Amino acid sequence: MSRAVQTQVACTEDMKKAAGYRAVDDHIHSGMVVGLGTGSTAYYAVERLGQKIKNGELVDIVAIPTSTKTENQARSWNIPLGTLDTHPSPDVAIDGADEVDSHLNLIKGRGGALLREKMVAIEAEKFVIIVVESKLVQGLGVTGALPVEITPFCWKRTMRCLLDVEAFQGCQVSATLRQEQDRIYVTDNHNYIVDLFFKEPIPELVSAARQLIDIVGVVEHGLFLHMADVCLVSGKEGIRLIEKK
Amino acid sequence: MSRAVQTQVACTEDMKKAAGYRAVDDHIHSGMVVGLGTGSTAYYAVERLGQKIKNGELVDIVAIPTSTKTENQARSWNIPLGTLDTHPSPDVAIDGADEVDSHLNLIKGRGGALLREKMVAIEAEKFVIIVVESKLVQGLGVTGALPVEITPFCWKRTMRCLLDVEAFQGCQVSATLRQEQDRIYVTDNHNYIVDLFFKEPIPELVSAARQLIDIVGVVEHGLFLHMADVCLVSGKEGIRLIEKK
Repeated sequence: MSRAVQTQVACTEDMKKAAGYRAVDDHIHSGMVVGLGTGSTAYYAVERLGQKIKNGELVDIVAIPTSTKTENQARSWNIPLGTLDTHPSPDVAIDGADEVDSHLNLIKGRGGALLREKMVAIEAEKFVIIVVESKLVQGLGVTGALPVEITPFCWKRTMRCLLDVEAFQGCQVSATLRQEQDRIYVTDNHNYIVDLFFKEPIPELVSAARQLIDIVGVVEHGLFLHMADVCLVSGKEGIRLIEKK
Repeated sequence: MSRAVQTQVACTEDMKKAAGYRAVDDHIHSGMVVGLGTGSTAYYAVERLGQKIKNGELVDIVAIPTSTKTENQARSWNIPLGTLDTHPSPDVAIDGADEVDSHLNLIKGRGGALLREKMVAIEAEKFVIIVVESKLVQGLGVTGALPVEITPFCWKRTMRCLLDVEAFQGCQVSATLRQEQDRIYVTDNHNYIVDLFFKEPIPELVSAARQLIDIVGVVEHGLFLHMADVCLVSGKEGIRLIEKK
């Protein structure tokens, strides 16, 4: 790795860490039920929460992890855990995002945990997004995949249906079944993920979300529309906030 | 069992058999791709299809079963099998239903196979329903459960959301997680089923379907609206048809 690339990577990690730490510092108080997201930025929020519980700055916290990965990380910090079944209304959920537009609409799920993340986000009183500035986009859909969680049964048929979604016509959509080490990737819910790729931003987000969820076989999708309350954007100059309008 | 009850049971079985056989005789021709439903009436359609393939009356058939149970029955008859992945557009699907209203809206899924049944029904050129006359209702929802397939993760939360569906207010809805021999029932897709019970018929079916599928954690539900093309209703007087208006 060249020194320039190393510096870039280090810098991005620092920015992720700054966002994760700041979200915990600003939004988590003792006594709260907290949804914990999944991914490389959410990782630092879990770390900070763990530290603050360990050193006694935060007490009486219950955390609801959105993936087995996050659950394992939280356990390693001895963070007390719950679920939406035991704790139906988290005070706050902190999570990363793959893309964020200026209306705080998100693409999430490239880490594979979209269903649980969406469930926790919906139930949380406040949904706090933490991202590095490269995740900010003008229109959703062009920096990477829009993940869609589908049932394994007849997945090829469901993938065909995804390509036929009317709201995607004009975006030059393509689809791949997610693989991991030459095997089909399986979510925590025993489902598959189809990654949709677009050459043009998705113009009609609400229609797209509606048409996706209406496909039989689609369990959930990575469009998180009108859900985020605040986004902490971490850049070289520090952290700035985008709040829900 | 009293003689009267025995006669009733025998009579119902005869009616189911008549409907299953008639559907195959009227709607399946050589060369077709055929969706095969699940349940005690669809059972007879599979049996008839098996017989007709065995005796050479039907050739070049590919059947798409909607459950492992139906798949096993079809295998026992050596019926050639496919899936929607290999055969995306079945010529016809034949299936039972738990309730049928006069517009051919259905409740399905009390047998647990609703997701696969809906997928096959949607893709089929023609969707043929076979029922005994006791399945005909004025309004859907009062002879038994409306099954909803949900992801196991935080199922209690999802069950609470189901009870809160706006379209069900006024129906006196209640919910139970389906059990089987003291264990949670698990679908072929590794999900759970919540059975919703109503004291009054569901008044706004389209809204109900919309609100159900919009709940994060709901994979599919047992309302099959505007899907059936024809219904063979088997009664003591024989079989009558209800066709799509």
